[in-house]
Amino acid sequence: MLTTNPFDDDKLREECGVFGLWGAANAASFVALGLHALQHRGQEAAGITSFDGGQFHSHRALGQVAGNFGDDDVISKLPGGSAIGHVRYSTAGGAGIRNAQPLFAELNDGGFALAQNGNLSNAMKLRRTLSRRGSIFQSTSDTEVIIHLVATSHETTSVDRLVDALKQVEGAYSLLVLTEQGLIACRDPLGIRPLVMGKLGEATIFASETVALDVIGASYVRDVEPGEMLVVNASGLRSFRPFEAANPRPCIFEHVYFSRPDSIVDGTSVYQVRKNIGAELAIESPVEADLVVPVPDSGVPAALGFSNQSNIPFELGIIRSHYIGRTFIQPNQEVRNLGVKLKHNANRSLIDGKRVVLIDDSIVRGTTSLKIVQMMRDAGAREVHMRIASPPTTHSCFYGVDTPERAKLLAAQMSVEQMRDYINADSLAFISIEGLYRALGDARNSNDPQRCDACFTGDYPTTLTDQGQGPAGRGLSLVASR
Amino acid sequence: MLTTNPFDDDKLREECGVFGLWGAANAASFVALGLHALQHRGQEAAGITSFDGGQFHSHRALGQVAGNFGDDDVISKLPGGSAIGHVRYSTAGGAGIRNAQPLFAELNDGGFALAQNGNLSNAMKLRRTLSRRGSIFQSTSDTEVIIHLVATSHETTSVDRLVDALKQVEGAYSLLVLTEQGLIACRDPLGIRPLVMGKLGEATIFASETVALDVIGASYVRDVEPGEMLVVNASGLRSFRPFEAANPRPCIFEHVYFSRPDSIVDGTSVYQVRKNIGAELAIESPVEADLVVPVPDSGVPAALGFSNQSNIPFELGIIRSHYIGRTFIQPNQEVRNLGVKLKHNANRSLIDGKRVVLIDDSIVRGTTSLKIVQMMRDAGAREVHMRIASPPTTHSCFYGVDTPERAKLLAAQMSVEQMRDYINADSLAFISIEGLYRALGDARNSNDPQRCDACFTGDYPTTLTDQGQGPAGRGLSLVASR
Amino acid sequence: MLTTNPFDDDKLREECGVFGLWGAANAASFVALGLHALQHRGQEAAGITSFDGGQFHSHRALGQVAGNFGDDDVISKLPGGSAIGHVRYSTAGGAGIRNAQPLFAELNDGGFALAQNGNLSNAMKLRRTLSRRGSIFQSTSDTEVIIHLVATSHETTSVDRLVDALKQVEGAYSLLVLTEQGLIACRDPLGIRPLVMGKLGEATIFASETVALDVIGASYVRDVEPGEMLVVNASGLRSFRPFEAANPRPCIFEHVYFSRPDSIVDGTSVYQVRKNIGAELAIESPVEADLVVPVPDSGVPAALGFSNQSNIPFELGIIRSHYIGRTFIQPNQEVRNLGVKLKHNANRSLIDGKRVVLIDDSIVRGTTSLKIVQMMRDAGAREVHMRIASPPTTHSCFYGVDTPERAKLLAAQMSVEQMRDYINADSLAFISIEGLYRALGDARNSNDPQRCDACFTGDYPTTLTDQGQGPAGRGLSLVASR
Amino acid sequence: MLTTNPFDDDKLREECGVFGLWGAANAASFVALGLHALQHRGQEAAGITSFDGGQFHSHRALGQVAGNFGDDDVISKLPGGSAIGHVRYSTAGGAGIRNAQPLFAELNDGGFALAQNGNLSNAMKLRRTLSRRGSIFQSTSDTEVIIHLVATSHETTSVDRLVDALKQVEGAYSLLVLTEQGLIACRDPLGIRPLVMGKLGEATIFASETVALDVIGASYVRDVEPGEMLVVNASGLRSFRPFEAANPRPCIFEHVYFSRPDSIVDGTSVYQVRKNIGAELAIESPVEADLVVPVPDSGVPAALGFSNQSNIPFELGIIRSHYIGRTFIQPNQEVRNLGVKLKHNANRSLIDGKRVVLIDDSIVRGTTSLKIVQMMRDAGAREVHMRIASPPTTHSCFYGVDTPERAKLLAAQMSVEQMRDYINADSLAFISIEGLYRALGDARNSNDPQRCDACFTGDYPTTLTDQGQGPAGRGLSLVASR
Repeated sequence: MLTTNPFDDDKLREECGVFGLWGAANAASFVALGLHALQHRGQEAAGITSFDGGQFHSHRALGQVAGNFGDDDVISKLPGGSAIGHVRYSTAGGAGIRNAQPLFAELNDGGFALAQNGNLSNAMKLRRTLSRRGSIFQSTSDTEVIIHLVATSHETTSVDRLVDALKQVEGAYSLLVLTEQGLIACRDPLGIRPLVMGKLGEATIFASETVALDVIGASYVRDVEPGEMLVVNASGLRSFRPFEAANPRPCIFEHVYFSRPDSIVDGTSVYQVRKNIGAELAIESPVEADLVVPVPDSGVPAALGFSNQSNIPFELGIIRSHYIGRTFIQPNQEVRNLGVKLKHNANRSLIDGKRVVLIDDSIVRGTTSLKIVQMMRDAGAREVHMRIASPPTTHSCFYGVDTPERAKLLAAQMSVEQMRDYINADSLAFISIEGLYRALGDARNSNDPQRCDACFTGDYPTTLTDQGQGPAGRGLSLVASR
Repeated sequence: MLTTNPFDDDKLREECGVFGLWGAANAASFVALGLHALQHRGQEAAGITSFDGGQFHSHRALGQVAGNFGDDDVISKLPGGSAIGHVRYSTAGGAGIRNAQPLFAELNDGGFALAQNGNLSNAMKLRRTLSRRGSIFQSTSDTEVIIHLVATSHETTSVDRLVDALKQVEGAYSLLVLTEQGLIACRDPLGIRPLVMGKLGEATIFASETVALDVIGASYVRDVEPGEMLVVNASGLRSFRPFEAANPRPCIFEHVYFSRPDSIVDGTSVYQVRKNIGAELAIESPVEADLVVPVPDSGVPAALGFSNQSNIPFELGIIRSHYIGRTFIQPNQEVRNLGVKLKHNANRSLIDGKRVVLIDDSIVRGTTSLKIVQMMRDAGAREVHMRIASPPTTHSCFYGVDTPERAKLLAAQMSVEQMRDYINADSLAFISIEGLYRALGDARNSNDPQRCDACFTGDYPTTLTDQGQGPAGRGLSLVASR
Repeated sequence: MLTTNPFDDDKLREECGVFGLWGAANAASFVALGLHALQHRGQEAAGITSFDGGQFHSHRALGQVAGNFGDDDVISKLPGGSAIGHVRYSTAGGAGIRNAQPLFAELNDGGFALAQNGNLSNAMKLRRTLSRRGSIFQSTSDTEVIIHLVATSHETTSVDRLVDALKQVEGAYSLLVLTEQGLIACRDPLGIRPLVMGKLGEATIFASETVALDVIGASYVRDVEPGEMLVVNASGLRSFRPFEAANPRPCIFEHVYFSRPDSIVDGTSVYQVRKNIGAELAIESPVEADLVVPVPDSGVPAALGFSNQSNIPFELGIIRSHYIGRTFIQPNQEVRNLGVKLKHNANRSLIDGKRVVLIDDSIVRGTTSLKIVQMMRDAGAREVHMRIASPPTTHSCFYGVDTPERAKLLAAQMSVEQMRDYINADSLAFISIEGLYRALGDARNSNDPQRCDACFTGDYPTTLTDQGQGPAGRGLSLVASR
Repeated sequence: MLTTNPFDDDKLREECGVFGLWGAANAASFVALGLHALQHRGQEAAGITSFDGGQFHSHRALGQVAGNFGDDDVISKLPGGSAIGHVRYSTAGGAGIRNAQPLFAELNDGGFALAQNGNLSNAMKLRRTLSRRGSIFQSTSDTEVIIHLVATSHETTSVDRLVDALKQVEGAYSLLVLTEQGLIACRDPLGIRPLVMGKLGEATIFASETVALDVIGASYVRDVEPGEMLVVNASGLRSFRPFEAANPRPCIFEHVYFSRPDSIVDGTSVYQVRKNIGAELAIESPVEADLVVPVPDSGVPAALGFSNQSNIPFELGIIRSHYIGRTFIQPNQEVRNLGVKLKHNANRSLIDGKRVVLIDDSIVRGTTSLKIVQMMRDAGAREVHMRIASPPTTHSCFYGVDTPERAKLLAAQMSVEQMRDYINADSLAFISIEGLYRALGDARNSNDPQRCDACFTGDYPTTLTDQGQGPAGRGLSLVASR
C-alpha cells in the first residue's frame, strides 16, 4: 500500500481536538468550521452535539469534518445556540464510531454531552470499578469513564457531578461539556493539553487552538488556565478553581509539531518558536553547506530560522504533493517501493551536486528519514546533513498522543551516531532540551520543568497507574507531592 | 458554499494530463502513479486503457486518480505491458463520464485508444462534417473528432490513419495512442502543450511533465519535439516528422503556473524560472517593506526570488490548510463569508504592524486577490503591496486551458491602477512580458514570439476557426505565413 | 411516494424475530440464513453476535439481512461456534442503529449479548429508576432496560442476574442470551411471543418460527414453553422454571397473519389454520358469487378454505408484483394516485362481469381495502363481497406488535355496516372470535382465554403500567390474580 | 453463493421490455412506472430518454427501475411530453452501462433515440460492414447496428432512414424511436416479440405488455401488427406498412412463461391460456395423486387448470420467500448446499405422506427440478409426479431470449424417461406441441406454424446468418419464400 496520508509519516500524532460555542444562532455551523481548522489534530472521526434550548441533537461519523458536516442537511439537523464538537485520531484497535465523541448521557438535571482532548493515566482502574457496579461501557475511550463517574455521582447538579468525577481521575484532559445549564470548559490542573477561549460578537468560544478562532473570524481572549473550570450561559461567564493547585506542565510538543504554525499556544507564536528552534540548531550544530532544505511542510519554519542564522540559502528542495490522504494498493512489486515519492519529490535541478542541510521536526521510528536522505542522494546531493528541531524522542506519551511503544522509538534504541549511520546521513544533530527551552524563552528548571517534556526526558508529571507503575523519578515524585 | 478546492482559486486551469508506458509488466500500475503525479492538470475524471497483447482493457471514472485507480482490484483488470492514461479537468457543460478519456475505437487493423492534452481550434467545423456523413458522436470532446477522422480515413494502417486525421486539425494536441502495433506519441507542430519522454529499465514512457517520471523512478530522456510522432513497439523506437515544419510556440503559462515547480519544462527548471521571475519583479517594481509573503503554494518560488533580490525577509505570512478539496454548504449567512479562511489563514503574529509584499502568480478575475489583501489588513498589516509573477491576463486561451470569457478577465477591463484600487492594495505591479522572457533566458522576438503568450498579448499562433475568426493581428498573420 | 413495500399495506406488523445456535462451526453463517427466513418479522435492522470461545464479535446494521450479512467478509468477522441474531421492525421514532440488537454488556463473569422479541409493559417505569441510579441508556429499546437490570443485579452468575432482572419486568419477551457459559433461551410466563427449539446434527437452535429451522435443514424439536429458561453449553441442555406459573396466552395473531404459512406455531400448521378460518368464514357468512379471490399473498390459504367449503372457484384475480420494497417519489400528481397498482394488478379478463368474494386476513385502517375493492370494480366486477379472516381489530397491542393508536383502527370507530359502506363493498363479514378459536381447534374460554386476543377483545393479559393503567376489565384482573 | 434471484431459476429469460408515451406532461414519470411493471422482462439495466420540444434528455443506469428512476430528482431531469424507456436483461459478457438503452444519435434532422426488444440474426455481419466504413461502435448490442444503419443512410428524414435501415436487418425487433418529429413504434414483419398500443386521455402509449398499461390506468387499444410502423405526433397517428408482407410468427413462449399472467398477449389472456395448458396436461397425462402443487409463482395458473380438470385438490405445498433478489456468499460448506431453500420452502405438514403432482412451466437445464423433487421427498412426499406446462425445450432461441447453448438443454440431450430418472421423479410428462396450440385455441399448422415455436421444434422463422447457417428445414424455406 502506497499512501500520501499526511499522518502516515513517521510522526507522533495528536489524538484529538475540541471546539465549542455558546451564544450564536446555528452554533453547529461554526463548530463544523472550527473542527475543520483543527482537522490536523484528528481526522478519523468527528462529531457535533448541539442544544436548542429544549433538546440535544447529535451527529457523529467516521471520516473527515468536511465530508460529514459540510452539508446543509446535516447542520440543519443540529439546531440551537450552543454546540460542542470533537475530532479524533483513533489509536490502533480503538477506531469505530462508538469511540467518536461527543458522548452523551441523560442525567437527573438533563442531558450531558462531553468532548475530551487528552488521556487519563488511571482510566483502566476506574473502568474496572465502575463496571463491577453495573455501568455498561459502549466504547473503549477514556472519556466514557468520566461520563459514568458523572452519571453515578451522588452530587445533584451537572457541575458538581463533573467536579466529583474529575477529582477521581489522573492525567490530561481539556474538556467541553454541554448541558441545559450552559457550556462548561475545563482543563486539568497540569494543563497538559491546550485549550483557548475566544469571542465572536456575543458568543463565547472554546477551542484546542487559536487557528479555529481565526477561521470563523473570532478573536482570541486568553487560554483556559490549568485547573480552571469555566461555565458560560445566559447569566454570563463564571470561572472556578475546583482542584488543588499544581505547577502547570503544558505539552512542549505542541510547539515542536502538533499545533499549526499560525496558532498562538501558551501565548507564544508557534511559527516564531519554530524559527527560534532553527536558529538555536544552527548555533548548536553548524555545518558547511550550499542549501537549507525543509522536509515539508512542518520543517519549513525551523529551516527558515536555520537559514537566517547560518546564511545558507533556504530552498524548496523537496516538493510535496497537494493530493494528500490518498492510497494506492498495488499488485506491482516494483511499484510498491515508490511510496515516499507519492508525497514528496526531490527538486532535482536544485539538489544535484549540492551539500544539503535537511531540517525536520522529529525522528520517531526513522523510516521516513531514511527514505528522504536517499531521495536527496538519488537527486545528486553531494552531502546530506540532517538537523532535527527537537531532542531525541526516547519515551512514550500517555496523555493523548499516539506514540509507538518505546521499543520502536529509534532514539530509545540507538545513540545519535548509530542513528546517523542508520539513516545514512553525513551528519545528524538534534537540538538539546535546553536549547528547546531557550527557543521558548525559558531556561529549563530541571527539578521541576515548566513543560511536560516526558517524551524527551521520561520525566512524567503524573503517576502512570494503568502502566502498573508507581511514582518513579523526580518528576513523578514532584507530582506526587501535590 | 465554502470550499477549499485548490482549483477554485482565481486561477487559469490546465485541462488535461497524459501518461503512457510501453514495455513493462503491469503497465497500468505505473500509469496510475504517473497520473496521480499529474493530478494538478485535471482532477475531475481519469482513465486508463491497457493492451495485453490480445485484448484492450479500459476503465474511466469521474473523480480523482487515487480514488479510482488506487485499488488492486481495478489495476488487475487492466493487464498488459502497455497502457495509456488521462486526467481531465472538465470545463463547464462538458463534465460527465462520456468525456473522460482514453477514447477507444475498433479499426480494421485492431483497437485504437487515444488520449489528448490540448484543444483544437477547428473541432466544431470538423464535427459537423463528420456528423453529416454518419459518424455518431458520444461526447462533446475535441478528441472524439480526431478518433472519427481516424475511423473514416481511407488509409490502411493505424499510423497512416492518424497522420491523415491530424493533417485536418488545427490547434494544440499532445497525443498518446495505444494500438496493437505499438504506443504512439505525437505533439502538434507548434508544440503548444508539453510532452516528455522517459525511460525505466527497458520501458519507454511519455508524460505531460517530468514529475510523472520522477514518481515511478524513471529518468527523463528528452522532450517530444513539436511536430514529432514517435512509435514504440517490440521493434524499438522510431521518430517521424509527418507535418510541415513550423516555428514552435510552447505555452509560456506552463512556467508561470500550470506545471509543478519540480518539473523540467522545455529543458528548464520551473522552480528556477519562477525564482528568476521574482528577482526580475524586484528589479522592475521594487518597494520598501518588512516582509515578503507568498500566496501559497504557487507563489513561493517567486517570493524567494523577490526576497533574495530585495533583501527583504521571506516569511510564511499565510498558512494554507492541508485539507484541500473540501466543501461546506452552510445555512448560516455569517458563515458564508468565511470561504477564503478555510484554505488560507493569516499568520497574525508575524503580520501585525508590518509592511507586507504579497507575491502571487497571476490575477484572473481578482476575487481572491481582494480577499487576501483584506486578510492581511485584518491581521494588522500596515501596508500591503502586491507583486504578480506574470503580465496582466488580457485574452482567453483556446488551446486546452480553461479561461473565463474575456469580459471576466480583470485585466481586460481595467488599467493596473484600477485593479490596484479594486483589490485595495497600497501598490500593485505585474512583471512585463519582456521581463518574463528574460526570466526564461530569452529576449522576446515580438515579430515571431518564441512562446505562445496569447493570454498576455492576444498573439494567437493559429487561426481560430471555431471562434468565427479568420487570421487577425500580427501574431496570426505570422502564423499564416508558415 | 408510491411504494411496493410489503409492510406498507394496511397491516399490523410483528416487530422482531430472533435466531440463535450453539454448537456448530461458523455459527454466524447459519444465523444469517435463519434471520433471512425470519425477515418478514422485521426488515429495518439486523444484527448478529458470535462467541469464539475467547471473544465476542458483533455486527449490527440498518437494512435487510442479505444486504448486510450476505457477504463472506462480514460473516468471517463473526467467528465461533455459537451466535445469536435479531431482525427488527422499528416503530416510529425508534429507528436508528442504536436500537438494533443484539445488545452487549461486559459483566463480571464475562460478556453478555441479548436479543429480544416482544415488548415490556413496565419498561418506562424501570428505565426511570435505573437512570436515577446512574445507568446511561444508549437506545430507546425495552431490551436495554433488561440489560441494565442484569448489569446492576447483585447476583453473581449471568443466569442468576438474568432471572433477577426478568422477575422485575412485565410483558412479552422471547429472549436469546449469549454468554461465555452458554446460550440461554427464555420465554415469558404467558408465552406471548413464540420461540421454538431445533436440532441440526449436534447443534441446538432457537428461533421465532420453524421456517428458520427449515432453511438450514434443521429439525423442529419442540416449543420453548411459557416461563421456561433453557441453557445449552458443552455440558448439555438444562431447563429451568424460574418464574411463578401462569396460564399461557400465546398471541393469536401469529396464526392470523404474522407467521409464515409454512411455520408450525404452538404445534399447529399455520397454513392449515388459515384454511380452517376460510372454511369457518364460508359457514358463518356465505354469499352467492362466481369467484373467490385472495388478496395476495397472505389471503391465499383462507381463500382456498373458503372456496373448498363454498364450492365457488378459487382464482388469482389479483396479481402481485415480484418487485416489492420499491419506492417511487413522483412529481406527477396524476401518477401519485397509482400507488396500489405498483404492487397489485387486477386480472381483468377474469374479473370482468363477475361476482367476486375477496378474502383478506385483516382490516386495520381500511385504506388498502378501499383501494382493492375499487380496483375490482374498475376491472368490471359486478359485485364485490369482502370476507375477513380475523375478527374486527379494535384494540392496540403493547407486546411487540406495531399497531396504530386506537383512534386509527377502523373497527374501533365504526360498526361493520359502517365499514362496509366506507370500503364500498356489496357485503362485508369478519370471522367471529369464537369461529377463530374453532379454526384453531379450541372453544374459547371467555373467563380465561387460551390465547392473547387483546387486539380483538381488549382482554390484556398483563397490567399496562406504562399506559398509566391499573388492571381493568376481566382479562386484567384474571392476570392480576396470578 | 446462495441466491434468491427470481431469474436464477432454471428458466429461459426474456431479454428486454420497452415502453413509450407521447402526449402527456411529465411523460418520463409514466415511463418509469411502465418500465417497473415490465421489470420481469429485464432487471439488470434501465433507461429513459425524453424530449421536451427542444432538447433530448437521457438517463441510463445499471440496476432496477425503482432504484434508478424512483426519485423525483431523476425524473425531473427528464422533462417533456414524450419519452421512451427500456429494461434489459444482459446476457453473459454483454453487461455494462454501454449496452443499456435507449441509444441516441444526432442526425441531420435532429436527435434520434432508439429502444429495442428482440435480437437480429444478421447483426454481426452488418456490424463488420459498418465498422469497415468508419462507424465506431460503443456497445455490443444489436440495437447499435440499427442506429448506425440509420446514421449512415442516404435518406433524408428520420422515418425514411429508419425504414432504409430495417430493410437490411433480419430477426426480431419491437422498436420505439423518439425523434423531434414524433414517437415511432415498429414491429418486425414476423411479429416475433410483442408490442401493444394503449391510450391514457390524449396520450398514446406503446408497451411490451398490457400490464404496463394497467399500472398507469391506461386502456389497451390493440396490438401493433407485425410489419406495422406507427408514427404519433401533434398531427395524430399514422400507420405504415413499409415491409413485404409475411405470415406472422409471434413467440409462443410469451404465453408459457415470459409474459405476466395478467397480460393480454395477442388478444388472449395469459392466465387463461396457462389454465388451459394445465387442463390439457391433465387430459394428456393423468395421474392418481392427493395434491396438485405449483412450483411458485409461474406454475400456479397451470396447477389450477390441472386441479380443476383432475379433481385433485390444489394446495400451496411450496412457499416462496418474499425476499427475492438476495445473495449470500458464505464461508460454510454445509451452508452452501442450502441455496434452493432460501427461495422455496416445503409446506411440510401438507406434503408429509402424500402423493404430489408438481406443476412447473418448463425444464431448461433441469437443475432446479432436481432440487424441488428432492425437497418434496425430504418433506415426506410418498410419490412425486412432475407435469410440465410446455413441450421439451430442445433448441436455442436467437430472437431476444437468453437460452443456454443447445448442449446444456436437458431435453436436447435426454429422452423424457432419462429426464425423469435424472430429476428423480416417479413420473414426468410434458404437454405436446399440439396440446399447447389447443390451449391457445389453435390447431398447429405443421407446414407453416402460426407461432414461433423454434425452441420446441427447431423450426426457425428466419435465416440464422450469424450462426453461419443458411436456410434449413421446412420452416426456414417457407420463410425464404416470402
